[in-house]
Amino acid sequence: MTAVVEGTGVFADADAGLLSPVRAGTPVEAVTGDTAWLQAMLDAEAALARAQARMGLVPAAAAAVITETARAEEFDLRALAEAARMAANPVVGVVSALTTAVAAAAPAAADYVHRGSTSQDVLDTATMLVAARALAVITADLERTADALAELAAAHRDTPAAGRTLTQHAVPTTFGLKAANWLQGVLDALERLRGLERGGLPVELGGAAGTLAGYLEYARIDAPEGAAGDPDRYVAELFRAYADELGLAVPVAPWHTARTPLADLAGVLSLTAGVLGKFAVDVQSLSRTEVGEVAEPAAPGRGASSAMPQKVNPVLATLIRSAAAQVPLLAAGVAQQLVSEDERPAGAWHAEWLPLRECLRLVGGAAHTAAELAAGLRVHPQRMLENLRLTGPLIVAERLAAVLAPVLGKAAAKAVVTRASLASVDGGRPLGELLAEVPEISAAFSRAELDAFADPAGYTGAAGALVDRVLARHRELGRVGAW
Amino acid sequence: MTAVVEGTGVFADADAGLLSPVRAGTPVEAVTGDTAWLQAMLDAEAALARAQARMGLVPAAAAAVITETARAEEFDLRALAEAARMAANPVVGVVSALTTAVAAAAPAAADYVHRGSTSQDVLDTATMLVAARALAVITADLERTADALAELAAAHRDTPAAGRTLTQHAVPTTFGLKAANWLQGVLDALERLRGLERGGLPVELGGAAGTLAGYLEYARIDAPEGAAGDPDRYVAELFRAYADELGLAVPVAPWHTARTPLADLAGVLSLTAGVLGKFAVDVQSLSRTEVGEVAEPAAPGRGASSAMPQKVNPVLATLIRSAAAQVPLLAAGVAQQLVSEDERPAGAWHAEWLPLRECLRLVGGAAHTAAELAAGLRVHPQRMLENLRLTGPLIVAERLAAVLAPVLGKAAAKAVVTRASLASVDGGRPLGELLAEVPEISAAFSRAELDAFADPAGYTGAAGALVDRVLARHRELGRVGAW
Amino acid sequence: MTAVVEGTGVFADADAGLLSPVRAGTPVEAVTGDTAWLQAMLDAEAALARAQARMGLVPAAAAAVITETARAEEFDLRALAEAARMAANPVVGVVSALTTAVAAAAPAAADYVHRGSTSQDVLDTATMLVAARALAVITADLERTADALAELAAAHRDTPAAGRTLTQHAVPTTFGLKAANWLQGVLDALERLRGLERGGLPVELGGAAGTLAGYLEYARIDAPEGAAGDPDRYVAELFRAYADELGLAVPVAPWHTARTPLADLAGVLSLTAGVLGKFAVDVQSLSRTEVGEVAEPAAPGRGASSAMPQKVNPVLATLIRSAAAQVPLLAAGVAQQLVSEDERPAGAWHAEWLPLRECLRLVGGAAHTAAELAAGLRVHPQRMLENLRLTGPLIVAERLAAVLAPVLGKAAAKAVVTRASLASVDGGRPLGELLAEVPEISAAFSRAELDAFADPAGYTGAAGALVDRVLARHRELGRVGAW
Amino acid sequence: MTAVVEGTGVFADADAGLLSPVRAGTPVEAVTGDTAWLQAMLDAEAALARAQARMGLVPAAAAAVITETARAEEFDLRALAEAARMAANPVVGVVSALTTAVAAAAPAAADYVHRGSTSQDVLDTATMLVAARALAVITADLERTADALAELAAAHRDTPAAGRTLTQHAVPTTFGLKAANWLQGVLDALERLRGLERGGLPVELGGAAGTLAGYLEYARIDAPEGAAGDPDRYVAELFRAYADELGLAVPVAPWHTARTPLADLAGVLSLTAGVLGKFAVDVQSLSRTEVGEVAEPAAPGRGASSAMPQKVNPVLATLIRSAAAQVPLLAAGVAQQLVSEDERPAGAWHAEWLPLRECLRLVGGAAHTAAELAAGLRVHPQRMLENLRLTGPLIVAERLAAVLAPVLGKAAAKAVVTRASLASVDGGRPLGELLAEVPEISAAFSRAELDAFADPAGYTGAAGALVDRVLARHRELGRVGAW
Repeated sequence: MTAVVEGTGVFADADAGLLSPVRAGTPVEAVTGDTAWLQAMLDAEAALARAQARMGLVPAAAAAVITETARAEEFDLRALAEAARMAANPVVGVVSALTTAVAAAAPAAADYVHRGSTSQDVLDTATMLVAARALAVITADLERTADALAELAAAHRDTPAAGRTLTQHAVPTTFGLKAANWLQGVLDALERLRGLERGGLPVELGGAAGTLAGYLEYARIDAPEGAAGDPDRYVAELFRAYADELGLAVPVAPWHTARTPLADLAGVLSLTAGVLGKFAVDVQSLSRTEVGEVAEPAAPGRGASSAMPQKVNPVLATLIRSAAAQVPLLAAGVAQQLVSEDERPAGAWHAEWLPLRECLRLVGGAAHTAAELAAGLRVHPQRMLENLRLTGPLIVAERLAAVLAPVLGKAAAKAVVTRASLASVDGGRPLGELLAEVPEISAAFSRAELDAFADPAGYTGAAGALVDRVLARHRELGRVGAW
Repeated sequence: MTAVVEGTGVFADADAGLLSPVRAGTPVEAVTGDTAWLQAMLDAEAALARAQARMGLVPAAAAAVITETARAEEFDLRALAEAARMAANPVVGVVSALTTAVAAAAPAAADYVHRGSTSQDVLDTATMLVAARALAVITADLERTADALAELAAAHRDTPAAGRTLTQHAVPTTFGLKAANWLQGVLDALERLRGLERGGLPVELGGAAGTLAGYLEYARIDAPEGAAGDPDRYVAELFRAYADELGLAVPVAPWHTARTPLADLAGVLSLTAGVLGKFAVDVQSLSRTEVGEVAEPAAPGRGASSAMPQKVNPVLATLIRSAAAQVPLLAAGVAQQLVSEDERPAGAWHAEWLPLRECLRLVGGAAHTAAELAAGLRVHPQRMLENLRLTGPLIVAERLAAVLAPVLGKAAAKAVVTRASLASVDGGRPLGELLAEVPEISAAFSRAELDAFADPAGYTGAAGALVDRVLARHRELGRVGAW
Repeated sequence: MTAVVEGTGVFADADAGLLSPVRAGTPVEAVTGDTAWLQAMLDAEAALARAQARMGLVPAAAAAVITETARAEEFDLRALAEAARMAANPVVGVVSALTTAVAAAAPAAADYVHRGSTSQDVLDTATMLVAARALAVITADLERTADALAELAAAHRDTPAAGRTLTQHAVPTTFGLKAANWLQGVLDALERLRGLERGGLPVELGGAAGTLAGYLEYARIDAPEGAAGDPDRYVAELFRAYADELGLAVPVAPWHTARTPLADLAGVLSLTAGVLGKFAVDVQSLSRTEVGEVAEPAAPGRGASSAMPQKVNPVLATLIRSAAAQVPLLAAGVAQQLVSEDERPAGAWHAEWLPLRECLRLVGGAAHTAAELAAGLRVHPQRMLENLRLTGPLIVAERLAAVLAPVLGKAAAKAVVTRASLASVDGGRPLGELLAEVPEISAAFSRAELDAFADPAGYTGAAGALVDRVLARHRELGRVGAW
Repeated sequence: MTAVVEGTGVFADADAGLLSPVRAGTPVEAVTGDTAWLQAMLDAEAALARAQARMGLVPAAAAAVITETARAEEFDLRALAEAARMAANPVVGVVSALTTAVAAAAPAAADYVHRGSTSQDVLDTATMLVAARALAVITADLERTADALAELAAAHRDTPAAGRTLTQHAVPTTFGLKAANWLQGVLDALERLRGLERGGLPVELGGAAGTLAGYLEYARIDAPEGAAGDPDRYVAELFRAYADELGLAVPVAPWHTARTPLADLAGVLSLTAGVLGKFAVDVQSLSRTEVGEVAEPAAPGRGASSAMPQKVNPVLATLIRSAAAQVPLLAAGVAQQLVSEDERPAGAWHAEWLPLRECLRLVGGAAHTAAELAAGLRVHPQRMLENLRLTGPLIVAERLAAVLAPVLGKAAAKAVVTRASLASVDGGRPLGELLAEVPEISAAFSRAELDAFADPAGYTGAAGALVDRVLARHRELGRVGAW
């Protein structure tokens, strides 16, 4: 069944997204697929040559040829994948194929491919490049999500709804505060993603064992009067030039086995998956048949069941949750590889690639899906009110107990409220009416006051003020980020 | 960058294995790729039609057309992957495409595609089919691994080597016992894999909410005199016919949200990855430059470094460890989805597919790699002996303390042995000679006896007997499994 | 804040269960606490002496003294915990304290404590002992849970209820089938737990590096004519005697770094947590304020909120879910330690203890809680019917489309049903009445037939038969297990 | 076996650390035990009363009584743990016990306990308090670790040692760069821990469903002219006063189900465990019997084996690794609870407590252990040199190939170097001598130059400069943190 498509060099039996609908067809795929990763390795090789050229260590013409040759579509992806088994990493094969291609174009340039370098420098740098490209896609979708949630929070700042804890009605809240709460999570993720973009994605440069010895040796040979004589200066210049070429950050030192950049990246992706999962699980909870307070945006054919013609499933939220369930474990897998022995571990490094890529893809898919869900969410305030009335006066019991405590004493107040609430639920008489029958109460409060106390929609506390605080944070972050 | 290869319908920017060298190009890929999964879904649909045909519910001709049409290569994999976003699973699109294709071939047959069925029946059954096919590949490679390890254990039953605990020489053992220990793990995995093959991979049949109502309704309509009038009999017959068509097991009831088959499968794969990882980590430990007791099988170009021409890396063990590091977390992700609400969960089911597939692929790649590693492992008994002598007499201190205790008393024996051992290490004089200088000792033992006690190679305990016990288990399992 | 209670030797600032209410006060605590673990280590030491005594290697009187002395309450738990830092495991300290205590009672017996043994033999065997004791507690609670769920399934075999998929009403099912589905999971767990009890919990005996050399050496010294001269026989006899003393299984070989027993145990506990979590999540889903189909058993004070006097939370299900969320990750942590290097790893072994203990405690607490929840669950069939009617005719759309297809053609049937269903929902007229207005339909079916087709309660498929199949399995397992 | 020690109220059968030697007896235990957590809950209650008193909502005398009464040692920890089962969290019982105790001291004050509050406010705030206290302990130990590693890096800036990749000698490096690499990880952790301390540990205040309604209602009742009339101002004042009382940060809004603070905390702890694990695994790799380049600090009795008198195990590193293996999974468990439904989830919140506490304890223990290991590590430069010479000229093959390429051409240079290296290894003649026999080479380089090129100790690249860069970072961070 496995085969390369005739005349194309394309591996047919691959992962085309069939088992991962959350990201199939979303923008993150194009920047995280195997081709994208290959391109990033080639970009790393080309940038290294250009950086060395800037320092006078490599002829500019050679760097130019390497750059021109470093195009993924010219290489046989599947052959490189299979060749990777020989070295336990794909770089050895990529360097060999690139060298051959460069030699074909300009024989003299071939010597300058991967000059002084090592597999891990190339693959780690490529990983950071892929991450940077994927985070840009993810951030854009999170910003769209945040904007849409901010609109929902503002629009429904004062829309009363049941607050639910441990699956049961608790006290009233507003739908706006629910949306603001989702927004909080998304803003947290955005803040941390931007933090990463500011220094968290460094180039990797260390050579065979992290001493830069190979680079330095070639520098001594290629430009005896250059920076190589002063290792401090040489390190600073090479780091800077390489990072500039790629738009990545300058590391303090090689991080072959100081894997904080990977752990940080995985951590932020895990958080992002989680906050989107929170949004999704609430959309599902609120769109249950019996609850019906929100519905996913309609689209022709979406949410169809293969068996039940009438059914419209909350598929966007389902897709997001499928990602949220997977990412934290994959991210933990990346974090565990911090424990990598020696100057390059025999397995730990190799166990980072797949989980990290999957984190990027799942989060990218989830963010894209969340943007669509947030922008199109249908909100049913009337249904919220009806549900709020289901627990009638019980949902304001906390409040009435507090209000009546100064009049009746704390314990008596709680008892009276409980009794009256249950009587109201059973007999259908308004709670205010029942409470007014207690002389001490009617002496202290008018019937209108009692009715107001018993109105769930009037007991939303500081919900509005809290929405405003979150919206202010959104504006502030949006301003800073200029999105 | 993402694109479908012109004129082929093949998605070019896919996962071709570049980031997962442990499985790139190994046999498990062909049975676990997206194409294989699509084929398994189509096989499930076709088998359902044939099973219903056997029961007189579907015309035999319709079942035949469906079977002929259900060939993955006729469908557009990438389009199906993208369509899966609409329903949060790929089956709705597959059923639609299959129905269209069947209708084109034989319009009357189209009505019998997916008759009474639901997405989860098809996808869960397909998952079990893929698992069965992948387990066959994995089992074959584990059997080869076991056979090769058994040969190593037998050949080196009495080859002395240092036993190491907490990284330090402890007491002597034999290389055969090390190999037998690896073999134990592989036999454990094989036993459990065979257990799975005997009933652990059931078909899924439940219809929209696990009541089989849709199947039963069509049965009533299509064959009013048939088994449908007796639901007990109908269930038993349909389960049996469907399972027979696919070579899978008969379930007690639908398992839409009773996910033991998935958890069991993931658990066995996690164990398999772990026992192979144990083998790999020991090969690495023993092939460290300073230890050098084993070396990976040589192959042209393998283990090359992109930077260091002289270096030969233990790449097979590294590949295996990269899998062993990933699988337990992916398996845990599958196990977590046991907590799936209602009659079909909104996310938990969808979070199983990718991790399970990755478990199969990683374990398949690791098993294939382990078979090669075990068959070609180069063993250096001379180096083992040299290393054993590094800790000279210290490594037999436990023994000498025991031997001398009856003569000197326990505490004195320990003290004398410790003193003499250190003196022997420092001064280079044989331990036997030093001990013989203690009158009580020379009164009890001859110098030859003392030398024998002090010979690490003579202190391997029941290592040989233990090797024999494990080899007997290997023979027994091999006989049962007739491999 | 940390302190030992004066005059008691008891460490006051410990884990008393405050952060783990799922198990606080349940029976599993007594068999998994630090004291229980200490006792198990002492039991392992005593059993070893008795086993060696049976083989004539240790004086019977010495074995008796060791057995009498090996009582946890006589030792200073906290001092032993702190001493464990010196060896990275608690056994060295325990052996030392036990030897001192034995020497005080009978000086001659002290030499026979831990004779030939190693820390890992004692701790691994103790772990299996603790596991055996905890599994007995867990199994008993799971059997109670299974029995209660079987009663629910039988009692509600034909109680109609909405089937829900992806949070939406799908097609009808019965509450009995929901309960039977929960029961399936519990039976799966019970089957695997019993499987473990039959051979999955072996003693550990290997000595310093797994060769049994120390044991054998002492055997040679202590009983020169005994089995020690024949290692095969000696291994078989010592394994058997030790296993008999403890009621554990006989291993093929030492499993110091062949950790299948641990991985299997963790796997079964993970499954158990998962199937209980499935039960709990459904109880929560069904007891949502808006759904109200079940309620947890009432108990004075249970489910109280610190803020809301009216609220009764589903706390039993919440406790169970808190365990189900934690166990799979802890179990994965145990499984990862399969990759343990050399003859004893420097960290992997040590990382098993805490996660395994927590798995036992959490599963034990969850099983105890589930038994209470299952036995006391309050079921509201009337509310189930009301909810079923919420989606009125839509929930039987699948069926009607099938029934009318032969009359109208498949596509037309689906269209007519969809139109009529929506009209019924909007206008309140019965679906049967609306369908009867279509001439082709009324020609084929009477109004009574149409009403029957449109009755959700009549469309429960083979639910009853499936319940019977699961109940038969329960009886079969119960018979085998004689519970 | 489980029991409360007579006359003490102390639960005897608890977790006294027996199974977790990495933290038994270390300072983190006192701030993370159940007593510490109980005290933190009481602190949260007392601080709330004082904050409300500051705003004129609670009488100052009442707040004072509550504060005086809120002492953990006055409460029955085990009874509270058992009571927690009734509400699925410990706060309900704590509030009840505290109220009773306050009432006994000053009846009028009892009404002001937990005024307007909810369980989650108290427990989440307590969690942040415990975290703050534990992080202080952890940070102090990490600073000691960093200082000791910086000393090692400086002292061995130029000590040559083999660089190892994939278990094999690669090219030379220095021991100083190894230490600097460990230091990098520790500095990363310190940076992130300090980041957390600056705003990452907020108080929780939301009331029953996150609207602050209960607080606001009491404020209206208790101080009708106060801030309650202006919810914006009220929220800001209450958040600020509460945070001030506790030394925690002010949140934007309640985070009952926006769990970023927990995920961030878990993420930093996971990173910290990982970087310490990296240090530990290298110490183990370098202290293998055959390598012997470092040794753990000696301490009487430490590293003893129960079986092997001569053995000294690297127990500190083993303890650290046991923590590093556990924390990432526990942290992932915390991160997964981000997906918490509604205004308070029914299980997700409850699944955070235990894993988070264990993360704190394990990291606290690991940091304490690492500080000891780093401060006392014994370094053997002579052994490093000997090991470097094991691979004699091979380890500088990369360099010689580069040096000779301009003279011989790249391919020929590589071939000559490989041939000469192997000849040197086999025949024992110096590599420089062998190379000097090639006329083109001796024409270009003197024998002294060739010998220098072939000296591994001379090929450490920019190792010194990189050490300096990391030490500069250490000084910079130390200065900022004033440690």
